[in-house]
Amino acid sequence: MIIVMKTEASRVNIDAVLDRVKMAGCKVHPIIGQDRTVIGVIGDGTTIDRHQIGRMQGVENVMPITKPYKAASREFQPADTVFNVGDVQVGGESLLMIAGPCAVEGRSQLLEIAHACKEAGAQVLRGGAYKPRTSPYSFQGLGEEGLQYLAEAREATGMPVITEVMDPALVPMVCEYVDILQIGARNMQNYTLLNAVGKANHPVLLKRSMIGTTLEWLMCAEYILSHDNHKVMLCERGIRANETETRNTFDINAIPVIKQLSHLPIIADPSHATGRWEYVGAAARAAIAAGADGLIIEVHQQPELAVSDGRQSLKPERYADLVKQTRVMAEAVGRTLPDSNKKDNLNGNVHLMDKHQLGAVL
Amino acid sequence: MIIVMKTEASRVNIDAVLDRVKMAGCKVHPIIGQDRTVIGVIGDGTTIDRHQIGRMQGVENVMPITKPYKAASREFQPADTVFNVGDVQVGGESLLMIAGPCAVEGRSQLLEIAHACKEAGAQVLRGGAYKPRTSPYSFQGLGEEGLQYLAEAREATGMPVITEVMDPALVPMVCEYVDILQIGARNMQNYTLLNAVGKANHPVLLKRSMIGTTLEWLMCAEYILSHDNHKVMLCERGIRANETETRNTFDINAIPVIKQLSHLPIIADPSHATGRWEYVGAAARAAIAAGADGLIIEVHQQPELAVSDGRQSLKPERYADLVKQTRVMAEAVGRTLPDSNKKDNLNGNVHLMDKHQLGAVL
Amino acid sequence: MIIVMKTEASRVNIDAVLDRVKMAGCKVHPIIGQDRTVIGVIGDGTTIDRHQIGRMQGVENVMPITKPYKAASREFQPADTVFNVGDVQVGGESLLMIAGPCAVEGRSQLLEIAHACKEAGAQVLRGGAYKPRTSPYSFQGLGEEGLQYLAEAREATGMPVITEVMDPALVPMVCEYVDILQIGARNMQNYTLLNAVGKANHPVLLKRSMIGTTLEWLMCAEYILSHDNHKVMLCERGIRANETETRNTFDINAIPVIKQLSHLPIIADPSHATGRWEYVGAAARAAIAAGADGLIIEVHQQPELAVSDGRQSLKPERYADLVKQTRVMAEAVGRTLPDSNKKDNLNGNVHLMDKHQLGAVL
Amino acid sequence: MIIVMKTEASRVNIDAVLDRVKMAGCKVHPIIGQDRTVIGVIGDGTTIDRHQIGRMQGVENVMPITKPYKAASREFQPADTVFNVGDVQVGGESLLMIAGPCAVEGRSQLLEIAHACKEAGAQVLRGGAYKPRTSPYSFQGLGEEGLQYLAEAREATGMPVITEVMDPALVPMVCEYVDILQIGARNMQNYTLLNAVGKANHPVLLKRSMIGTTLEWLMCAEYILSHDNHKVMLCERGIRANETETRNTFDINAIPVIKQLSHLPIIADPSHATGRWEYVGAAARAAIAAGADGLIIEVHQQPELAVSDGRQSLKPERYADLVKQTRVMAEAVGRTLPDSNKKDNLNGNVHLMDKHQLGAVL
Repeated sequence: MIIVMKTEASRVNIDAVLDRVKMAGCKVHPIIGQDRTVIGVIGDGTTIDRHQIGRMQGVENVMPITKPYKAASREFQPADTVFNVGDVQVGGESLLMIAGPCAVEGRSQLLEIAHACKEAGAQVLRGGAYKPRTSPYSFQGLGEEGLQYLAEAREATGMPVITEVMDPALVPMVCEYVDILQIGARNMQNYTLLNAVGKANHPVLLKRSMIGTTLEWLMCAEYILSHDNHKVMLCERGIRANETETRNTFDINAIPVIKQLSHLPIIADPSHATGRWEYVGAAARAAIAAGADGLIIEVHQQPELAVSDGRQSLKPERYADLVKQTRVMAEAVGRTLPDSNKKDNLNGNVHLMDKHQLGAVL
Repeated sequence: MIIVMKTEASRVNIDAVLDRVKMAGCKVHPIIGQDRTVIGVIGDGTTIDRHQIGRMQGVENVMPITKPYKAASREFQPADTVFNVGDVQVGGESLLMIAGPCAVEGRSQLLEIAHACKEAGAQVLRGGAYKPRTSPYSFQGLGEEGLQYLAEAREATGMPVITEVMDPALVPMVCEYVDILQIGARNMQNYTLLNAVGKANHPVLLKRSMIGTTLEWLMCAEYILSHDNHKVMLCERGIRANETETRNTFDINAIPVIKQLSHLPIIADPSHATGRWEYVGAAARAAIAAGADGLIIEVHQQPELAVSDGRQSLKPERYADLVKQTRVMAEAVGRTLPDSNKKDNLNGNVHLMDKHQLGAVL
Repeated sequence: MIIVMKTEASRVNIDAVLDRVKMAGCKVHPIIGQDRTVIGVIGDGTTIDRHQIGRMQGVENVMPITKPYKAASREFQPADTVFNVGDVQVGGESLLMIAGPCAVEGRSQLLEIAHACKEAGAQVLRGGAYKPRTSPYSFQGLGEEGLQYLAEAREATGMPVITEVMDPALVPMVCEYVDILQIGARNMQNYTLLNAVGKANHPVLLKRSMIGTTLEWLMCAEYILSHDNHKVMLCERGIRANETETRNTFDINAIPVIKQLSHLPIIADPSHATGRWEYVGAAARAAIAAGADGLIIEVHQQPELAVSDGRQSLKPERYADLVKQTRVMAEAVGRTLPDSNKKDNLNGNVHLMDKHQLGAVL
Repeated sequence: MIIVMKTEASRVNIDAVLDRVKMAGCKVHPIIGQDRTVIGVIGDGTTIDRHQIGRMQGVENVMPITKPYKAASREFQPADTVFNVGDVQVGGESLLMIAGPCAVEGRSQLLEIAHACKEAGAQVLRGGAYKPRTSPYSFQGLGEEGLQYLAEAREATGMPVITEVMDPALVPMVCEYVDILQIGARNMQNYTLLNAVGKANHPVLLKRSMIGTTLEWLMCAEYILSHDNHKVMLCERGIRANETETRNTFDINAIPVIKQLSHLPIIADPSHATGRWEYVGAAARAAIAAGADGLIIEVHQQPELAVSDGRQSLKPERYADLVKQTRVMAEAVGRTLPDSNKKDNLNGNVHLMDKHQLGAVL
């Protein structure tokens, strides 16, 4: 921690700060400059609150040196986190492909999409049973009935399933039905929920909030990790900026940033990150090119009838195209898609991915 | 709802949209322009999801006409919401003064601040028992012990108390101790919590999130109101922008905007809205000048030892100054502070600036 | 400057940084911590670019200690800048009231508004002859013809005039017609223009950009001041945030922040800061309450026919109301409006709220 | 244009609006709903200012239907803009590779980097002779001397050169030295400069501002196009958001958005869009994957001695790696890099671009 004193700070002010820091068991290292004194603090910074020091007389600013997350940091764990959900690997060389409808709307709808997604190349099925809706008068999800359909779809397709959980009290029940818990963007800093999910020791996908910095996001992951639940993946789903042509702004930088700062896998959500199906393909390709460990994509048979987010959902045939493009991208960056050996007769992918095909999704 | 078709939309596309809207029981009103067709939709828009229509072929954009909140709107209830918490009036001509420490740190700390705040002119005591902290390793609040101290401080001073609630499951217990529940900025869109608080039928202060628009904020109030809990006040606490000199950016516009769109009282939180005690006074005066119905201010005897937010806390004597300034401001805009009759020897501009005149510009 | 080394930085890395800094003529002060080394740099930081050091091997971060503006800082000049434009004082106890149309639309329009503004209480007339329009196909202003009308309005009313200048080459010509040059928000960092205006040695009103921090804004003022043109006032006109109900977000915090960091007068522009005439009054009162040195307000006889910004323009009679409210506010914070002695029968709170008391919180 | 009347709008209000619109030569199409009237306007919307109508009594909102740009729109020109700068093609299948130092620092520095960039695969040399610096006390560029070095580097390498122009008065002179004029982010809405550059009829690279929407950006391109200068390319260089780990936030969505809305080529600037050399490679790959038509990259032999932006500059050997990766990406999306036939022995690019190599730039 570095404490910057004001130019007009008195000797008494400086001594008070030095005493305060020493009382906390840290060593001090004052640097007396031409205009002002700056105090370096050596020791376990967690015992001193920098906002307290910031309030002492004569202090202009207090700057942290150390990142506040530990278990989520690459310094703490240099090797990438890799774990399994059923037979599916999360992290590692192989990319994770999650797909499915925004909301579980009914049994047959879900089963149909599930089969279509699997056929197209998805490994994990997504579907919302509890929907965070802006309006209390909008469809709020099928609840436990939706979870039952998800479990049935897992049986039918063999794909693990992921769903958003919003109520801490329901975490244990939701864990009985699904393989991965999703924390939505609005709940990124819902600490009660993070603690509940941490204790559940179930795999978690933690979405970044619309405004959170990567540092705040990693601190939220830290909440989960602090309960010794290490099966955590992060998900970049777009931030809110000024653009009106897209629903959100895809922070593609976040992918290499997280890769550098943390060992946790990072999944991209091009559906929310653009909010318009026309742009999902370009964003998905960019995510893989930037180093993402997987994609979560909204797919619906009839997006114009979807109860939510139809604007950004792909039809199954477009999703199949996107998987093909993802495979090409994966190879370009030295990653693989599951089954790529079996299905791969793409040799010379330039031909496969010609401009015209790209245009279909572009 | 207005549906804007693309210039290249075909007759078939247009007919499909017309049929879709009619199926939902709405009347359609196509306007055939030079370049494109625009379709006006008459009827109960809540039966059609505009994102679904937005996904139909040939549709460029779908624009809502009606605001999505109802119970929170001034059209629904033209008169200001005014209610009582104990003897304290919320809304109405008199301003609401809430003060206290960021966190309840201990029994004697709280009692001492409580008395100091009351003496300075506060009517309601704030104090956090459950603290939303960025780090899982930081002090998380005293929990129920903190609630007990708050209840004791209420006994000792006669002031109603407010505290933040984060866990939906704890809402009934927290209601037994405190008079007003606070929803923090990070939980503005925590719908599980909003529903729990709505059902509790306890007075609520709903903070705006760091990124929420006034429309999203009113939709969150709508969640609470939809449970017939009408004792809701809003609290503007600053949004996140690019400025680095302050912790947040106080959206002063939100005050007249909410006053125009809604009947709910709006309280300003200059402590968080600036994040630096030096600027709290200016922000507080501005809030009252703009039409806020009250102020919530962080006060601490020794801000440099506060376990959280010391940087923005006022010492009791500065808070007393702020109350004096607030009184002057209140009179300048035709409002009052409690006890202003007793203490009031300001005889002055109240007559000049009566409510009617202000209303002309508000 | 503080240089934070990475935890894995080698002895060689550290020595290279130490040598580099010493070569620049600064003293170094290494602090060897548990995990990493931090280097304090003492001396004239302007000789070292922190981005260069940031690029050296083993360096994690470089943090400046000193604010980069000099002439604009309160440390450089503790006393408020006060100057005259004709008979009108800028800065100081008395508030500056600027009003007029967004654009000069014609001779009679301008003269009529000018007289109405003056009668209502304005001291300076605004009017755009060169308009920065989003579209190249929109009305771009009357140019020099507009300047002639402004000069004529000055003759007719005795009010100094202010207009925006966009083209550095036209600065000398514009100076011949008007008393104050305005730098618009879009040109805040147009350094060619700032230099031209600095050299002109004419009074300047420098608007903050829609995204600029207060630090960047002061650096732009520094450009003007560096040419020894000291007649500079700043103007807060709202930043761009997410809100859709208002055109911009009025950063009211900027007023006390600028007052603390700089000696330059700060004027508020509630017309742009809200973008809706209904909210202009509330924003204007808030600005004065927060410590602004004046107001610039758009006034138009027939806003619904204004060639630009009609949505935010006040009719003359509403502006007259606003001036009355401003007078009340001014007295509440210990400021005055010109002619307040003549018109003043408010006898009241001026004594209560003297400057000293306000200063305690400001 | 759609005019939404307030629910309480009177018959007289509605008639006034209808008359106003008809006076402007447009047809009206009122839709009388349950709660309110909505008026469709048919005809040339450019004759009516929506802000004027928005100000009329009883009007709640006025929504434009048509995009305000014309010459920049894909509707106006469906085919991609492709043009040549010397022998180098801009737009089209082949990607444009621009590289060079942030600032021209001297003759030998520039020549050395120019040769290194060319060798690595760059086609156009960048270098700033006029630098927009936050501080008036920082190095402002070598001016015309820098232009001379650029011209010399062109002679020596055969590469066309690009430089930023800030002063409208210098545009003709700068055109004599360089092949492409760059409008920097801070000057995106500097309309005087846009007009000067439009009239010069010289190729232009127009950077997006840190806050501009894609719509505003296209309107700025429209300024240039309106002078019949059609050699315009856009450049996405990152917007300002809340993230602190990167200097800017790369809006990757902007690439497919621009491709859909406009026919103009779009170049990505991963150097500014990340601000940290470690992330430049990932951002560059993402840009190509998303459909960008080229890359502009900062390269410096000794970034730790660069007079500006050293933090984000690549060393020549890293730039050579980046070009190789770009080539792989180009092929994956069906694009080419110049000379790819000659140099291309990459067949089976998976091997070339193994994880280890990527890690070097990641």
